[in-house]
Amino acid sequence: MTFIRSTFKKNRSLWLPALNYIRAMSSEGPTSAFSTLSISRPSNAITHVELNRPEKRNAMNRAFWSEMVDCFTEIAGDSECRVVIFSGAGKIFTAGIDLMDMASDVLQPEGDDTARTSWNLRRIITKYQETFSVIEKCPKPVVAAVHGACVGGGVDLITACDIRLCTQDAWFQIKEVDIGLAADVGTLQRLPKVIGSGSLVNELALTARKMYSDEAKSCGLVSRVFPDKESMMDGALELAGEIAARSPVAVQGTKMNLIYSRDHSVAEGLDYMATWNMSMLQTQDVMKSAQAAMEKKTPKEVAFSKL
Amino acid sequence: MTFIRSTFKKNRSLWLPALNYIRAMSSEGPTSAFSTLSISRPSNAITHVELNRPEKRNAMNRAFWSEMVDCFTEIAGDSECRVVIFSGAGKIFTAGIDLMDMASDVLQPEGDDTARTSWNLRRIITKYQETFSVIEKCPKPVVAAVHGACVGGGVDLITACDIRLCTQDAWFQIKEVDIGLAADVGTLQRLPKVIGSGSLVNELALTARKMYSDEAKSCGLVSRVFPDKESMMDGALELAGEIAARSPVAVQGTKMNLIYSRDHSVAEGLDYMATWNMSMLQTQDVMKSAQAAMEKKTPKEVAFSKL
Amino acid sequence: MTFIRSTFKKNRSLWLPALNYIRAMSSEGPTSAFSTLSISRPSNAITHVELNRPEKRNAMNRAFWSEMVDCFTEIAGDSECRVVIFSGAGKIFTAGIDLMDMASDVLQPEGDDTARTSWNLRRIITKYQETFSVIEKCPKPVVAAVHGACVGGGVDLITACDIRLCTQDAWFQIKEVDIGLAADVGTLQRLPKVIGSGSLVNELALTARKMYSDEAKSCGLVSRVFPDKESMMDGALELAGEIAARSPVAVQGTKMNLIYSRDHSVAEGLDYMATWNMSMLQTQDVMKSAQAAMEKKTPKEVAFSKL
Amino acid sequence: MTFIRSTFKKNRSLWLPALNYIRAMSSEGPTSAFSTLSISRPSNAITHVELNRPEKRNAMNRAFWSEMVDCFTEIAGDSECRVVIFSGAGKIFTAGIDLMDMASDVLQPEGDDTARTSWNLRRIITKYQETFSVIEKCPKPVVAAVHGACVGGGVDLITACDIRLCTQDAWFQIKEVDIGLAADVGTLQRLPKVIGSGSLVNELALTARKMYSDEAKSCGLVSRVFPDKESMMDGALELAGEIAARSPVAVQGTKMNLIYSRDHSVAEGLDYMATWNMSMLQTQDVMKSAQAAMEKKTPKEVAFSKL
Amino acid sequence: MTFIRSTFKKNRSLWLPALNYIRAMSSEGPTSAFSTLSISRPSNAITHVELNRPEKRNAMNRAFWSEMVDCFTEIAGDSECRVVIFSGAGKIFTAGIDLMDMASDVLQPEGDDTARTSWNLRRIITKYQETFSVIEKCPKPVVAAVHGACVGGGVDLITACDIRLCTQDAWFQIKEVDIGLAADVGTLQRLPKVIGSGSLVNELALTARKMYSDEAKSCGLVSRVFPDKESMMDGALELAGEIAARSPVAVQGTKMNLIYSRDHSVAEGLDYMATWNMSMLQTQDVMKSAQAAMEKKTPKEVAFSKL
Amino acid sequence: MTFIRSTFKKNRSLWLPALNYIRAMSSEGPTSAFSTLSISRPSNAITHVELNRPEKRNAMNRAFWSEMVDCFTEIAGDSECRVVIFSGAGKIFTAGIDLMDMASDVLQPEGDDTARTSWNLRRIITKYQETFSVIEKCPKPVVAAVHGACVGGGVDLITACDIRLCTQDAWFQIKEVDIGLAADVGTLQRLPKVIGSGSLVNELALTARKMYSDEAKSCGLVSRVFPDKESMMDGALELAGEIAARSPVAVQGTKMNLIYSRDHSVAEGLDYMATWNMSMLQTQDVMKSAQAAMEKKTPKEVAFSKL
Repeated sequence: MTFIRSTFKKNRSLWLPALNYIRAMSSEGPTSAFSTLSISRPSNAITHVELNRPEKRNAMNRAFWSEMVDCFTEIAGDSECRVVIFSGAGKIFTAGIDLMDMASDVLQPEGDDTARTSWNLRRIITKYQETFSVIEKCPKPVVAAVHGACVGGGVDLITACDIRLCTQDAWFQIKEVDIGLAADVGTLQRLPKVIGSGSLVNELALTARKMYSDEAKSCGLVSRVFPDKESMMDGALELAGEIAARSPVAVQGTKMNLIYSRDHSVAEGLDYMATWNMSMLQTQDVMKSAQAAMEKKTPKEVAFSKL
Repeated sequence: MTFIRSTFKKNRSLWLPALNYIRAMSSEGPTSAFSTLSISRPSNAITHVELNRPEKRNAMNRAFWSEMVDCFTEIAGDSECRVVIFSGAGKIFTAGIDLMDMASDVLQPEGDDTARTSWNLRRIITKYQETFSVIEKCPKPVVAAVHGACVGGGVDLITACDIRLCTQDAWFQIKEVDIGLAADVGTLQRLPKVIGSGSLVNELALTARKMYSDEAKSCGLVSRVFPDKESMMDGALELAGEIAARSPVAVQGTKMNLIYSRDHSVAEGLDYMATWNMSMLQTQDVMKSAQAAMEKKTPKEVAFSKL
Repeated sequence: MTFIRSTFKKNRSLWLPALNYIRAMSSEGPTSAFSTLSISRPSNAITHVELNRPEKRNAMNRAFWSEMVDCFTEIAGDSECRVVIFSGAGKIFTAGIDLMDMASDVLQPEGDDTARTSWNLRRIITKYQETFSVIEKCPKPVVAAVHGACVGGGVDLITACDIRLCTQDAWFQIKEVDIGLAADVGTLQRLPKVIGSGSLVNELALTARKMYSDEAKSCGLVSRVFPDKESMMDGALELAGEIAARSPVAVQGTKMNLIYSRDHSVAEGLDYMATWNMSMLQTQDVMKSAQAAMEKKTPKEVAFSKL
Repeated sequence: MTFIRSTFKKNRSLWLPALNYIRAMSSEGPTSAFSTLSISRPSNAITHVELNRPEKRNAMNRAFWSEMVDCFTEIAGDSECRVVIFSGAGKIFTAGIDLMDMASDVLQPEGDDTARTSWNLRRIITKYQETFSVIEKCPKPVVAAVHGACVGGGVDLITACDIRLCTQDAWFQIKEVDIGLAADVGTLQRLPKVIGSGSLVNELALTARKMYSDEAKSCGLVSRVFPDKESMMDGALELAGEIAARSPVAVQGTKMNLIYSRDHSVAEGLDYMATWNMSMLQTQDVMKSAQAAMEKKTPKEVAFSKL
Repeated sequence: MTFIRSTFKKNRSLWLPALNYIRAMSSEGPTSAFSTLSISRPSNAITHVELNRPEKRNAMNRAFWSEMVDCFTEIAGDSECRVVIFSGAGKIFTAGIDLMDMASDVLQPEGDDTARTSWNLRRIITKYQETFSVIEKCPKPVVAAVHGACVGGGVDLITACDIRLCTQDAWFQIKEVDIGLAADVGTLQRLPKVIGSGSLVNELALTARKMYSDEAKSCGLVSRVFPDKESMMDGALELAGEIAARSPVAVQGTKMNLIYSRDHSVAEGLDYMATWNMSMLQTQDVMKSAQAAMEKKTPKEVAFSKL
Repeated sequence: MTFIRSTFKKNRSLWLPALNYIRAMSSEGPTSAFSTLSISRPSNAITHVELNRPEKRNAMNRAFWSEMVDCFTEIAGDSECRVVIFSGAGKIFTAGIDLMDMASDVLQPEGDDTARTSWNLRRIITKYQETFSVIEKCPKPVVAAVHGACVGGGVDLITACDIRLCTQDAWFQIKEVDIGLAADVGTLQRLPKVIGSGSLVNELALTARKMYSDEAKSCGLVSRVFPDKESMMDGALELAGEIAARSPVAVQGTKMNLIYSRDHSVAEGLDYMATWNMSMLQTQDVMKSAQAAMEKKTPKEVAFSKL
């Protein structure tokens, strides 16, 4: 009891130490700490998060929304991890929100009057938004690898990732308008800043039509299309490997400043960047990298300290 | 009569009740309340606004600027309308501003000294900007369907629309620099947020070169190119029908939040969205839509209340 | 002499009067006032700035950073110049920062403790950022013409230009992550606002992979690809000629408002624009341009006053 | 007649030409065009707007909300007017919103479901907000002169004015929290930017306690306290006279830039100001004022053109 | 075990159920769940949080920083609580940060190089900032009651509260500059928006001089000064009672919109407010309050539902 | 000589090396490098800048505007200086702009048409704005000490300073409206963020009335009033001494973050602060200060490294 209390003091989210404990015992293979996510480390410094409810078409149920927060909070603090791959188990990436499981939250919110019901709904929406915002707050780059359907909440999720890849058979659908609501956990906010055509964003959001991989590539939603899931996962691993091999100070600083710049004017972005780099430039990694470059070594041959 | 006309000139809003009255009497067929716009209802819940001065190549004259405001103000409050199509009558979409008609406003502004002339010009520019901003303030999505030339003010207009379609023979030209001025009623503000290539936006605005339909499609200015006007109008109607069939709470909330998000950071967009949806999620439309989905019905088979 | 040189080091602006003086004497042909830039006037109203250290692959050394500021400050005030072309001499556009020359600044910054070293680094970074921001602050449009490699600082530079052209053999590389740092003089701030695909921006910045001309064109980084340098320079001159022929009031007002709009909401951009044009519309250039248009003359046949 | 009245209800702007017409006929004495506001011109260039429902303690009824917009829209365009005094007729300034008259709007909004009711409420609130925002949009300075009670909507109103005066017996109360709602037509947005103590703003808004004139003076809500209404009105006229005597280009430019600066960073405010004054400095008024100053004349002795 | 797991699912922060459990058992008297904070409910709907390390002059130790987050997170979700009083036990409010306990965090941060040390420090500072930001995120108003010294972190804390009261013997000191650092957990960000004199804020922050209660009152830092702690606590309870008696929908909406408005332009604040109130106006509380007002009842006589 | 003078006119920065040279020779006593400013070092680490045209009532002539930039640019880079006192020589602080000397710039700007004249005016205004913005950009705190009149440009100047003191006989006047223009070099932008009463700011700016020292103190414009100039200068020196004694890392970081926070939301201010302090906390000054505190030494007894 005393032991538990003392861990409590340091760490108010009980999940984390429990999880760490479990991991310590089973360091290889996916952990079973989450019911909707499967975590593995396919290669050094790369964490693979797999949406893992294939029997439910990876629909996002109640557990998913809170497990995502725990998962990415942990990854954010895990100095062994330098880059994340996010994909879906089974036949498709995700069918989106699991309406059966979530219905009571969203469709029958509690409250003595309209104001109180609204208050509760706002709290719930804000919590769900946080589920995907943690991806952005996690300083490690996240590569989304999409195969098959990516519907509704799936689009909210991948627009919060840093890089998107997909298979030839992938398709994307902003489904919310079809169930009578404006997408409220990220798509409407992030998609216009992710792809270049305002006309296309509006059309997709207003009609809920499917967009297939070719259009996803040409409009810039994904950077690359692969023939099938296997080749995509290979490609994702290779890409993640490229990122993981580089200085984590450089990589994570790049991610954080790209996100900051998206939301600020150029002048503000430059000011923040200068303030950021006044310390970050004092890393050994610059010297190590410069030396490696002179010795014609690749980044993968350089050992950077953890971050 | 002369007296009335002169008050009309001072006060555009006098149009509205007159218009309502006229409409009440002739509910089918295009109304004749506007001299530059022709309004019709080609299909349930779809309003078609046609720029209708074909003999003047749909040039934007003095009447146009105030009729647009009246027209879209009325549409904004018309609960029968769920989506708008905007096109041009005759051979081209529009030749832009009607310099002959507008010249006295812009070229010979009044004022006792430079400051007072400037003051008057600022008032005029602000009023003209409002002409296109009403499209954005109107919560119903607006689909622009462009054929032939879309010049100067035409580009200002379509960048304020939500979705853009065009014919194979369409071309676009930011003409203002050719007549010695920086485009000041929307193009410079909206185009960079509408298409993905900053280099292209700058080139078009600085050289006044024409952009043809293929480039308009590949750069994302339009979502789709049709072989001719007839097929485009069919396509526009089909697209508008898709939007009109969906919950107006969802559709109009989507438009308003997409525009809000364009002008704010992601965090601010999410906060606004949560505050918006805390009430909007309490619509019957969610339940109706969900039930329809379970019964394998399309949105068109669901009857949503007016908004 | 040594004394003078050391004051020069402290105070870059001392260059300017010297330069003006030299120029007054040798008005034709490239000046030799800069050691890293070669300035010429290939055609009326067009200034050509050439990065001119071909023997060092146009690497950006210490002199370059301050000469850029002097050069563009002077161009900003030079009423003879209406548009700028920026290109690189020799085999490639630029290899980026000259680490050998810059190393002491960046790698061995001075300071009694970490805070003071950071303070100095921030001052240095801010100064380097200014080097490219002057391109943006200069109201004359700048056309970047890229051939061969455009690496690291080169990408920072061209994203601050208004229009980008390249040759078929051009390639682009955000190199910074490879030497252990987050790009801090403009790329991370400007590139996301220059090209349409967020996924691609992130991938390029996080992996330092090369992007070739075809992808640069399709993603919108450049507006046009030419077969070789010669044809590109011809194209650049033609494009610059189109811009130079137009009213400088219109052209420079367009540039300044496009940049303002990039960093503000549409409503703020419109307000600023109206306040800008309340005086700028009172230019003779509008009347001159209108008259020329009626007489079927091209802008090149109109003589506009200097600005 | 009934027909006209009903169109009036729908369309407030119909008032304006009627009003202009009436005024043309009776240029002296207060007009009777408004049912809740009495307009007079107590002195050259000064418009006095009086809230005039003394029998109802100047409660803000349905007519008031639209008459304010018409009144200030007209004043904004009235070049004879250079400054406005706003006061209340009868025993107090205002008792705030007239709940009896407004109840159906606010308490029983229409709508088929919660979302639609919310939609209508938002439209209504936005319209009511506009009622006070027109004071801010009107470029002529508005001096509020408060005696007796200033409750609820009264505080919303005066915080949108530029200068506030009051009598010794005046008191102020943010009443909204007492009737179960957060003040939504301006107080919460403007009061924190009007007075210096955050703690006091919060206390007043959260407890609905009355604040008397002494505290109103010491916290900066009002600039001056007068012994009684008569002396206050004299003081207001004198103050308004000082403002009216000065160049309208200077005065109105000052108001508009003060409001702009309140809502922007200092750097943005300076940029806007420079862009504003690049034309406004070219007024004859500067020369006239400078000459008057050299001749030891007061501004009142200078004749400025209308604006 | 199953029981624990199921509570985990609902609530990932284990503290909360544990704490609730403890409270259920000892509902009167302060709980002992926190080591640095003592929580009680002195009156209906009022939560009293007392900084409770009197033997250490209420210095903020490591436990304090995380307990604050837990405490206010819980209060935010506690529908029984409508307003919070925050005070200090013992002779003074707080001596600020407990340097002895915190030294290792701040003075000897870990990291393999400067960049990594900086990274860790930034994480720590951000966490500490969150400690006071939770006060602002908690929608229930927080009244700070200060007696004796309020030093360093104490000023950070009270500027995040909504209303500030103090005793005659209270004094305030921004201590950070005295220990070689710029105050980084809120004072520099919030104080300028809390009191009206920029000159005074700067002087206090740059010289670390003490400010006594009289000046704190006259500059607006506190709303009221009491002769001694007992009378202040009575006053705080009375003030809190006034707030607690009012509709929680109105009170908490007021707090949230005041904070939103502080950080946005007036136009943005109004838009957010309208979107907020479109649902919140649909509360029964408006009708209840209106009815009570007509029946001459005070808010305390009205029973509002929990929120 | 004439040649040199003319280059000087074009290029203010040429002053700097000259100045440095002169200083090297005469390190004690005020320098004579500036014609309008007198610089001295009354005490260790304190720079005293005196506006020194007493025979012209310290009116701001053409030389002043550029000398201020040179002076504060130099101070910004002078690691011997930790705090600045700014005062006026002779009988008053300043009579404001020297209209006789400046008239040609402002009253007779050049330009071939209105647009070009406006363009030139904008450039001039922007340059003048910079004159006072350098005070803010200089990281060393600036204490303004005002005696007698502080008119027009004087108010622009002191609102850009960090702390303001004045004598009993001081008075302040926003004079611009009296000469037909809106104050455009800082007062309208900064004053509302410097004092707490919006009503007072507006009244002062719109009426040009004088404000005396008592009101200046009670509204928060100045932090302290002294009986006469001598006691004020003593007080200023003492205050400056307090600041100069403290860690320059702490002091200058405090100034820069206070200014950043003024122009940003609290959340943005906190983020910037954390990014700033992640390196600045790693200063030896924290340890030195902590140790001094434990040894009961005052900051003046600690030797901090230069910054």
